[in-house]
Amino acid sequence: MTVTGLVRFSVSMDARLLERFDRFIAEKGYTSRSEALRDLIRDSLVESEWAAGDREVVGVVSLLYDHHTRGLSESLTAVQHEYNTVVTTVHVHLDHQHCFEALVVKGKAAVIREMADRLGSLKGVKHARVTLGSSGKDLP
Amino acid sequence: MTVTGLVRFSVSMDARLLERFDRFIAEKGYTSRSEALRDLIRDSLVESEWAAGDREVVGVVSLLYDHHTRGLSESLTAVQHEYNTVVTTVHVHLDHQHCFEALVVKGKAAVIREMADRLGSLKGVKHARVTLGSSGKDLP
Amino acid sequence: MTVTGLVRFSVSMDARLLERFDRFIAEKGYTSRSEALRDLIRDSLVESEWAAGDREVVGVVSLLYDHHTRGLSESLTAVQHEYNTVVTTVHVHLDHQHCFEALVVKGKAAVIREMADRLGSLKGVKHARVTLGSSGKDLP
Amino acid sequence: MTVTGLVRFSVSMDARLLERFDRFIAEKGYTSRSEALRDLIRDSLVESEWAAGDREVVGVVSLLYDHHTRGLSESLTAVQHEYNTVVTTVHVHLDHQHCFEALVVKGKAAVIREMADRLGSLKGVKHARVTLGSSGKDLP
Repeated sequence: MTVTGLVRFSVSMDARLLERFDRFIAEKGYTSRSEALRDLIRDSLVESEWAAGDREVVGVVSLLYDHHTRGLSESLTAVQHEYNTVVTTVHVHLDHQHCFEALVVKGKAAVIREMADRLGSLKGVKHARVTLGSSGKDLP
Repeated sequence: MTVTGLVRFSVSMDARLLERFDRFIAEKGYTSRSEALRDLIRDSLVESEWAAGDREVVGVVSLLYDHHTRGLSESLTAVQHEYNTVVTTVHVHLDHQHCFEALVVKGKAAVIREMADRLGSLKGVKHARVTLGSSGKDLP
Repeated sequence: MTVTGLVRFSVSMDARLLERFDRFIAEKGYTSRSEALRDLIRDSLVESEWAAGDREVVGVVSLLYDHHTRGLSESLTAVQHEYNTVVTTVHVHLDHQHCFEALVVKGKAAVIREMADRLGSLKGVKHARVTLGSSGKDLP
Repeated sequence: MTVTGLVRFSVSMDARLLERFDRFIAEKGYTSRSEALRDLIRDSLVESEWAAGDREVVGVVSLLYDHHTRGLSESLTAVQHEYNTVVTTVHVHLDHQHCFEALVVKGKAAVIREMADRLGSLKGVKHARVTLGSSGKDLP
């Protein structure tokens, strides 16, 4: 049986460390220390999910490309269709030459990285990045 | 006067290093060594743009949140309107509880980071990340 | 007046998040939840110290180089002397060709990065990295 | 048969990208464009060596700790002896309370990370970090 609901536990800490942490999280906009600690914890868990490679994760692949490159949009579409991980994409026209595209992806981290490598290697794609995320499923 | 057009220059390298590099980029899907080198160069330049903090950059802020949290969507909108950096957003319903949102942002890196901190600190936001990107303007 | 000594405060959390965190830290070897949380907090603070650039930090610059490169050891020494940040260095002979050196450094983050860039740019230095650290002074 | 010796190949690039790269590497102290490109290439290869987990790598584990913590130095030694990866260590007395230690390590990346996790989890260790490196063996 999995325990559910809110639990409360106590943490001991050097007063000066707590003082510094409180200042640090206030700068970031937190109004609750518990919320800040929960976020730190979730962040560590998300990184370990991605490191594992075989867990289902959610993330973003972002691409900057020159849309004048011949055949590029066909190649971008073809690669995305080969991998069954793109949920949706959003496109921004940056200037007369550059497009920026964010692909929301869901799948195994290793597969997502492979697709991002393939997309980034296409001629005309100037920059490609993968962002860590989580499906939230195991992130209460 | 700025030089334009393609130039060609030669690089000297230990044959074994070149061999390993060729294998490495083939795995990533590159068919051209020049293209792979251009991407490595652009990647370094983009990182230095973000480190500078005051250059205009393009990127993605991704958020995972629990949409049941009372008042969250109002807060998310309010914070985004305070900062004049969000170009567009795309939203995905992950399951009955979780939403994933990718915000395409354009502005100074320092401002984007500050907004992302504020969004991430909201109760109900479980994970927030910023991804490096470039406006392409200084990235031929 | 700065508060000193240990304080104790309570944190509220979804029971399932706490369960996952407890499993995560047990894998890493932690026997105390407070200690794991203190380390997460310190880690965030150290990253923000380095990002600031002008705080005194402690860290390591590691170098891999080919000691056959003519004039390299003189150049390595000369650059290190220009910057007044190297506390001590340790040297390992990896094989007949390669040396690995770890420089323990203390100073402003921006200065340390600049020195590391200079060292990494020397011919014969194959790899250079800077690792984040803290002087501990503001890290109770 | 493996090819050896220096080879020379040519790269084509937009003149403005090359201009920006030349400025970027000059700031870092490079006097040779080939050397800067070789370093970029080696850096990518080193990261992929570490990501693989099972390759022999060289690196640094750095630790900041409070030497007043009872039993800590025995625990630090015990954990290091369990893993057969520490080549040498260098120790710096930062102030009356803090020690900084850099462990030069050689072994499989996954094993090194596990040891660093164990060391970092000890009470009294305030900060622990692993730095990527290479044995140089496959890094011409």
